[in-house]
Amino acid sequence: MKSIVTIGGGTGQYTLLSGLKKYPVDLTAIVSMADDGGSTGILRDELGVLPPGDVRQCLVALSEAETLMRELFNYRFDEGGLKGHNFGNIFLSALEKTSGNFEEAVRVASSVLAVRGQVVPVTTGNVVLRCDGGDVFEGQNAIDRMSLDEGRRRTLRLAPDAFANPKAVSAIERADCLVIGPGNLFCSIIPNLLVRGVPEAIGRSQARLIYNCNLMTKAGHTDGFGVGDFVDEIERYVGKGRVDYVVYNDTPPESELTERYVQEGQPVAAGPDEFDGIGCVPIGTDLLSRRLYANKAGDPLRRTLIRHDADALAAVIVGRCLGGL
Amino acid sequence: MKSIVTIGGGTGQYTLLSGLKKYPVDLTAIVSMADDGGSTGILRDELGVLPPGDVRQCLVALSEAETLMRELFNYRFDEGGLKGHNFGNIFLSALEKTSGNFEEAVRVASSVLAVRGQVVPVTTGNVVLRCDGGDVFEGQNAIDRMSLDEGRRRTLRLAPDAFANPKAVSAIERADCLVIGPGNLFCSIIPNLLVRGVPEAIGRSQARLIYNCNLMTKAGHTDGFGVGDFVDEIERYVGKGRVDYVVYNDTPPESELTERYVQEGQPVAAGPDEFDGIGCVPIGTDLLSRRLYANKAGDPLRRTLIRHDADALAAVIVGRCLGGL
Repeated sequence: MKSIVTIGGGTGQYTLLSGLKKYPVDLTAIVSMADDGGSTGILRDELGVLPPGDVRQCLVALSEAETLMRELFNYRFDEGGLKGHNFGNIFLSALEKTSGNFEEAVRVASSVLAVRGQVVPVTTGNVVLRCDGGDVFEGQNAIDRMSLDEGRRRTLRLAPDAFANPKAVSAIERADCLVIGPGNLFCSIIPNLLVRGVPEAIGRSQARLIYNCNLMTKAGHTDGFGVGDFVDEIERYVGKGRVDYVVYNDTPPESELTERYVQEGQPVAAGPDEFDGIGCVPIGTDLLSRRLYANKAGDPLRRTLIRHDADALAAVIVGRCLGGL
Repeated sequence: MKSIVTIGGGTGQYTLLSGLKKYPVDLTAIVSMADDGGSTGILRDELGVLPPGDVRQCLVALSEAETLMRELFNYRFDEGGLKGHNFGNIFLSALEKTSGNFEEAVRVASSVLAVRGQVVPVTTGNVVLRCDGGDVFEGQNAIDRMSLDEGRRRTLRLAPDAFANPKAVSAIERADCLVIGPGNLFCSIIPNLLVRGVPEAIGRSQARLIYNCNLMTKAGHTDGFGVGDFVDEIERYVGKGRVDYVVYNDTPPESELTERYVQEGQPVAAGPDEFDGIGCVPIGTDLLSRRLYANKAGDPLRRTLIRHDADALAAVIVGRCLGGL
């Protein structure tokens, strides 16, 4: 069975895993540990735990438990003192407090959720994302909302220094295929690549490296980015020429949707000249989900409503990048 | 395999089940649904759920899952916005919100905790305990703290009218043995017997009925009660002469402990004249736990530290009331 390792965080990784798990592959999800927004941020602040949110999304994506259990782990309280908290986050945090160990919490949660595959925190250090622009800006949630120009982007780092979880290193080294993204580039994807030992392991690995480009730019972060610019940012960390395939959407979202979110971002440009001088194989296809999304009651974060179709994304990765299984 | 049905709530039922589960018996725990104190009360108020606390204690008692899972379900947050909440209570409440059904929540939690036996809410109505003393007093938590004289005790009721869970009725009717108590007499035990259909089922059942008398009186509720007085209160609901055995402690707790709790209660009197005219077999033995208990950090309720020994209690029930198995 081919081994696929995904590297990311947030809703993008959830979608990717939801699609890939329908194939007979050995899946490992390596998850960013820099999140400090919403329910996750409150639990980190108040309980001193590691960030549960991104790990929880991966666990649910890979769960083969009954629907009710998966709904439970994604359930968000919308009233009372628990308002805004996600149940799965509380579950992982309480387990971490009980066991004294986040990885043990992930192990038990994986068992409860009958997870097929593995979910691996990229680091088990308690880290925050930082950037510098004269002043120091701290926290993924804060950086997510601020303008991140070229100068600031170059100063992104984790504090304190983060060291790779040995399980993540080992999974990367043994993988047949590494899949990076989709997801918030500077807040969900690159925080994995800022962990010491991760780019090095990607460099040593013989795995094919697939990068799933985002559908939309993010205002203040990736304004005007085309597919090639996203690839450049990834290769700044994993090494020039290391990406083998870039998978991107070549179908414009409905203008009604793009108009509603014009202040948040634009469809990522993928004109023919985007790929001049690119060192990887570009694969463009229709990756848009036609499901209707709405921001959920009680969710303290605003989430994009233009999303990847899980099945379309997985089909491209398996069928065209891996040449079938 | 003999079928034992316990009827109660709170820590007393937890202890009883923890002891009984070591025997090869078919266990069903019928649980009071009147609790509205502490974490349970907050969840009822804020989320409109049924009371999870007593059910959760029974689930943990009957769990054969790994120790960490049982610790998790008993874990109480002691900081931040979740302070005072018990994780297992949050689990059941989130499941009830997700599934829309408390019994479904109990089913899923039973599976997650690998429960041997069954935990059955005595009613699935959303009820509160009430009593009358000129004014109406409402809520188990409030009644627990107030003075409950003879007159008020006679007015105890559930509001709105509570009807028995058919699963509870069926378990009682088919049981070989019914075990009532130990536990807070008017706030954990009798709220089961106030549910319409429960005393009637106990009356129809051919099962032996064992009543486990409390170790201590409760100031304001059972001052001066001897073992016979406790039996009288139970038989007021289940019918005179229906109790077959009363199991009581005949060993005084250490005076250091009784002195510390002198304002909360006294050891239950069990002198020879306690049993004059009693219609059941009294079985007195040393039932005291020698474990050291302490009130836990973050627990909003004060709990008695003089407790039954789970193994001693179960041994008497199985060995002397059931004549072995």
